[in-house]
Formats: sequence, C-alpha cells, structure tokens
Amino acid sequence: MSSPAIYYFDNNATTQVAPEVIEAMLPFLRDYWGNPSSTYGFGRQLGSHLDEARARVAALINAEPREIIFTSCGTESNNSALQSALTTRPGKTHVLTTAVEHSANIKFGEALQKRGYAVTYLPVAADGALDLERLEQSIRPETAIVSVMWANNETGVLFPVKEIAAICQRRGVLFHTDAVQTPGKLKIDVRALGADFLSLSAHKLHAPKGIGLLYVKRGVKYQPYVVGGGQERGRRGGTENVPGIVGFGRAAELAMARLGDEDTRVRSLRDKLEEGILQSIPGTARNGAKEPRLPNTSNIAFAGVEAEGILMLLDRAGICVSSGSACTTGSLEASHVLTAMGCSAARARSSIRFSLGIYNTEAEVDYVLKHLAETIARLRAVAPVEESFNAKAQRSNDAKESARETSSASWRTSE
Amino acid sequence: MSSPAIYYFDNNATTQVAPEVIEAMLPFLRDYWGNPSSTYGFGRQLGSHLDEARARVAALINAEPREIIFTSCGTESNNSALQSALTTRPGKTHVLTTAVEHSANIKFGEALQKRGYAVTYLPVAADGALDLERLEQSIRPETAIVSVMWANNETGVLFPVKEIAAICQRRGVLFHTDAVQTPGKLKIDVRALGADFLSLSAHKLHAPKGIGLLYVKRGVKYQPYVVGGGQERGRRGGTENVPGIVGFGRAAELAMARLGDEDTRVRSLRDKLEEGILQSIPGTARNGAKEPRLPNTSNIAFAGVEAEGILMLLDRAGICVSSGSACTTGSLEASHVLTAMGCSAARARSSIRFSLGIYNTEAEVDYVLKHLAETIARLRAVAPVEESFNAKAQRSNDAKESARETSSASWRTSE
Repeated sequence: MSSPAIYYFDNNATTQVAPEVIEAMLPFLRDYWGNPSSTYGFGRQLGSHLDEARARVAALINAEPREIIFTSCGTESNNSALQSALTTRPGKTHVLTTAVEHSANIKFGEALQKRGYAVTYLPVAADGALDLERLEQSIRPETAIVSVMWANNETGVLFPVKEIAAICQRRGVLFHTDAVQTPGKLKIDVRALGADFLSLSAHKLHAPKGIGLLYVKRGVKYQPYVVGGGQERGRRGGTENVPGIVGFGRAAELAMARLGDEDTRVRSLRDKLEEGILQSIPGTARNGAKEPRLPNTSNIAFAGVEAEGILMLLDRAGICVSSGSACTTGSLEASHVLTAMGCSAARARSSIRFSLGIYNTEAEVDYVLKHLAETIARLRAVAPVEESFNAKAQRSNDAKESARETSSASWRTSE
Repeated sequence: MSSPAIYYFDNNATTQVAPEVIEAMLPFLRDYWGNPSSTYGFGRQLGSHLDEARARVAALINAEPREIIFTSCGTESNNSALQSALTTRPGKTHVLTTAVEHSANIKFGEALQKRGYAVTYLPVAADGALDLERLEQSIRPETAIVSVMWANNETGVLFPVKEIAAICQRRGVLFHTDAVQTPGKLKIDVRALGADFLSLSAHKLHAPKGIGLLYVKRGVKYQPYVVGGGQERGRRGGTENVPGIVGFGRAAELAMARLGDEDTRVRSLRDKLEEGILQSIPGTARNGAKEPRLPNTSNIAFAGVEAEGILMLLDRAGICVSSGSACTTGSLEASHVLTAMGCSAARARSSIRFSLGIYNTEAEVDYVLKHLAETIARLRAVAPVEESFNAKAQRSNDAKESARETSSASWRTSE
C-alpha cells in the first residue's frame, strides 16, 4: 500500500502521525516489548522511557510528571475526571458543563443523569461565548465539578478557562477542562490556568490513536476509573501502552519546539483560507467568533448547500474536511454545537469545518479555495437556495423548525 | 537500539509482538492514519479494515463480529462487564467472584464495595480449584453477575467456566469470564461456553499493548463504560485505535493457525521444564493442580529461597520469569493467588512463574534448567533453609503467620 494523495484539512478529527513519532515508537514494538512492571531488566528498563515520556508531556503543559495519568483516549480522561469528582465528593451530585462540549462529556452527562445525578448544560451565545455570570450562578451547593472545554472542536472558539478556574476555586468546586484541541496550537500552562483536571489526546497531536492523558493537580483527590493493577501509581489499571506513551512523549517534545510556528504560519494559512472563502464565495458566513479562537480552525456556513454534497465533491478532489465532529458523523442530526449557538438546523447542515495542521502548505490552501468555489457553484446550480429550503421544508415534520430554516435571518446570527 | 539477548519465559505478563503483526500495523501508522468516523474516503476506507479485524477476533472465539467491543485493555473489559451488569440490573447489588482473580477484578470489586455494592470473593482449594456447589450457594437474589476467570495467570489452573456458565444461566444471573490468558493456548468457543461477557487482551497474544476486547453475547443488555462518541456502535467512545485493532486482528488470525502447535509443542516444552525442575532440584513443588491447566504455565515453589533472589540471579543470565503477576509486582505482598490456595507467605514468596510461548525453543529450556539449578544451589549455600525461615520469623510481627511459615507441612499443601 502506498500513501494516498490527499489534501488534509481535518486536523481536529485526527492528525498524521509524525514520522519522528513512529521512529520513536518502533523500538518498543519490535525489540523492547516487555512489561514495564516486570522485575527483570528487559521489562524494568522500560520504566526510564515511560518516565522520559511522562516528563515530556508534563513539560508541554507545565505540570509535574507525577500529575500525569496516561489513559487510552481523551474520552476516558474526560469520563475519569467527572466520575472521580463525584466519587471523592460524596453528597455532591451535580455536574455543570456546557451544551457545546465534545460528545464524551455530553453523553457521559446523560449517563450520569440516568444514574440519578443532575447535569446542567450551559447555553452559549450566537458567537459561541459563555456567560460567566450565568456559569457562576449555576453552581449549586451540591455541585461537584464544572467541566468546560478549552477550545471547541467544531468552531475553534476558546472559552476563558482561566477565569472559570478562578470562579470554581472561589466557589470551592472542582474544575475540569477538555483541552484535547489545544496542544501544539496554544501554550498550555496548568500552573497559570489553575484547573484541577485537564484532558489531552495524543492523536490530535501527531501521535497515534489509543493514548491520552489526564492531568490531576497535585493535592486533588483522585479515584481511578479503569481499576486494576498498580500501574500509573495505582491511578489507572492495565498494562502500560509503552509504544503509545513513548510516541505521545515524542509528539509533545516536537509540539513544544514548533509552538510559535503553529500560531503564526498555520494561523496565516487558516486566515488566507477563511478570508478567501468569505470574500470569493457569496452566501458564506463564519460560525463562531473570529477571536478568541484556535489558530487552525474555521467553520463556514454555505447558504443553500447541504454539507453532505460539499463533502462528497471535495472528497473526489482528495480534500478532507468535515461537518460536525468526526465522533458524531454518521448521525443525521445537525451539529449540537452550531444549534446551541442558535444556528438553524439548515445552517448547521450547510456548515463545513476546516482544521489545518503543521503539514499544510499555501499551495494546498489555493487548491482547496479553487475546488471549493467550483463545488459550491456547481451545487447551487443544481439546487438554487430557495428550492433547497423549500425541499427541506417539505421533508420536515416540525413546522417551527421549518419556519426557522426558511428565515434568512438565521444566516446572520453569528456574524 | 538492537534487540537484547533474552530468554523469555514470562509470556503471561506480556508477549513479543509478532513481526507479522507489526507489519500489518505499520501502514495504519504511516499512511492510513485517518479517522474512521470521517465521511471522506481517506477516513472511511478504514472501516473495512476495522471490520476485517473484528471478524478475525470474532472468529478466534467463535463469536459474531457484532458481539465484539474493542477496548483499551483487559482491565477495562473486566471493569466494563461488571459495571454494565450492575447498571442494567438496577436493584441487583451483588457481585460474585473469586479470591484468585486478576487484580483488575479484585481491585474493582473493592472499589464497588466502597460504593455500597456487595462483593463475594470465593475461596479456592489447595490445588486452586473452585467448589461449584459453594459457588451456586453463594448466588443471592440480589446477585447481578458472577465473574470467574478462565485460566489463572499465576498458576495456569483452569476453572470449569462452561459448568459455571450453566449454573449462572439456570439461576438467572449474568456470567463474565476473564479469558485474557487463554487465546492461542486454548480453543475458545463462546457459543459452546455460554458466557454473557468475555474479556481478552491483545498484548497477551503477540499483538501490541493498549488494545483489548469485550465480548457481549447478542441479546445481553450493555451500558458503555467509556462513554463518548458513536464508535463501536455506541458501545465504547473514543477514536478507534486503528493500528492496535488491525494488529489484534492479525494476531488472532495467526493464533488460530497455530492453536495445535501451542497445545502440543509449547506444552511439551513446559512439561520438560517443569519435570526437569521437580526432578533435578530438591525442595521444589508445583503450585496448583497439574491438570486442568494452561499448556504454557508452570508455577514452582523453591523451599527456603526468596523469589527475589532467584529473579535477580536469573536476570543476570538474561532469563525473564516472574513471581506473582506483573501487574502486582513492586508490592511486597505475597501473591494473593498462592495465599488463597493456602500456601504460607514464605512459600508464596519462594515461588516462581514460568510462562512459555510460541517463540521458546528446547535449547532455551535447557539453558533455563542449567542456570536455575546453579542459582538455587548458590542461594541455598548462602542461606540454608532453616536460617532463612528463622530470619523471616524474626522479622514477622504476626506470630500465627510465623508459625505457619516455619511449618514444613505448608510445602505440601498443593501437591
């Protein structure tokens, strides 16, 4: 099998594993495949490599190595933080989160509700912003934890997590942030941030799938979620995923070295793409605030065109982009993030996320701009805006929903 | 880094990743690193590879592919089965398991107890056997699930899981078996077995660490443990560990092809090793029944010698073996498995597990036999049996325990 020719603009879904990361992992698949918990040298020697990787991911977020628990993914990290808060604070039965979290939090919240816990999903404004006063007012005496993502995976909108951490500290509740979209793109300093828990996923950072971490601030009580042997100092059972952990460590090291690049070069590519779309293709609008936002993400609505058609035609040109998040693809529902921002279902279903990465080039941006303009023109030619909406209105069983869909006002909500 | 020269007899701790498995994984690290949930071809194409891997692991255990949930490890699989049983059977608050389970079950049981559930740990006989009558009598009206391992990781002793499954079915309780030590060594047929849940771990089967599976019998209600996106048909959140899953599939395929070999060639190597030790080294005894037992495992007590010393000297000769399981190494406690079988703490601390695998050769067995005889002789020369026991008796604060330790009778309990 050879490498396919693709134009990859979906780095918030997953990232290319860096060649340097694969290089770092291979010895631990081929030669050093022992169990790190063993007493003999062949296994025991792995300990120093795990330590090194732990130090590297800790350095990336300015944590102490002992504050890092390796998990299998960001979802497990998120679940673990919330469950630990509820378990270690008996009597506290409320979780406060937002309506635009990753499905890991939304669905876990629903599972908690079934088990008798109360979960509040805070709404967001049209530009994706949170009302911090409302957040503070929503903290109850029985609130165990507030969980708010740092950067939205669909729009790139950043939440003021430092301010939220301060509110939580003042109110005596724990604070968790899902920071899965941030490493390599933003500087992460857990000391300055003040969060009690922070989740990361390696495969969003040019490391492989199947590995993540949960930062737990020193002194914060923690109850393991995956419970077994004494691995991770008794905080996460299961034989350590040595190649994955080593790869994560190498990726963290690479990310620290290129942080400036991602915030300048990738940002300028993203801006060129976004401005190019908004200026050259009529009936387009950005979803979510321009700033504060991840430097790599752009979410654009294309009036009167179904995202499904856009994705299909771009795919034929080798262009990888997405609508909604990869984790909810396949469901026919409109993005819960965009609808929470007040977008109509029609607008949400006409929106495309572009998420750039370190391997993108200016030539690739030009290629996307060219094909995108042709694609939108072609789709609009076969289904003019009005017809498209009418067709959808007929399919819809929800009159109110249909009314919102046919209102052109909804296309301006987040501009 | 080059491959170290080792004599690896610790295959129950982890196994060498098969070269064929690494070969199968590499394209999914290097070239096909997309997100399988994506709509574009570059991501979507991964679906067929996941399907193929799922079909292969399903074939290994005679399950349907839809009955397989990929997890991150055996520990997660075990936790998931128990938690799902308790969640889907509200009002049922009791778990019945054994005192010799892997720490994944023992420690998770303790966590459940802290949360108000009742957990019974069934004792075993001196040869490691379970009393099935007692098991059945221990099922209560409020029992949600019985969880009994198929093969013990420390002694290789097999439990009659088919009979236990029948008891559970008759009594209307769910049955889970931790089968992590069995694949490649025993034929697994979940249809014939009749268990509701079965856990496997890839790294015990020449696939990489960080991937496992939970079999859930069709029709059995399941609540996900790691909750997030719609992956694994909504049964396990988190982006799929594609290289790990593909590797697991390839390993399952290889294991099916060599099942006969492991049960004959590996068994005869194990028997040669065990008989060689018992016949040529005085003061040795097998822990656990001779049969029914895994074909690859032998657990031997060396009277009057601390396992720690044996491990250290063998390690110098490049021989990898263990005392207890890798997952509990580092703790100074004597093996909970051997003590549950009535071994004195002294005997448990003088016991070594040899677990062979497909890559072992007869020459390696000869090498181990030679070095082991020298090692034991050397250790006994510096610390004769009586002295060793006296020294320990002085260190012990528990008079009863000391009395048992100094009784030579305890050396015969499981013979």
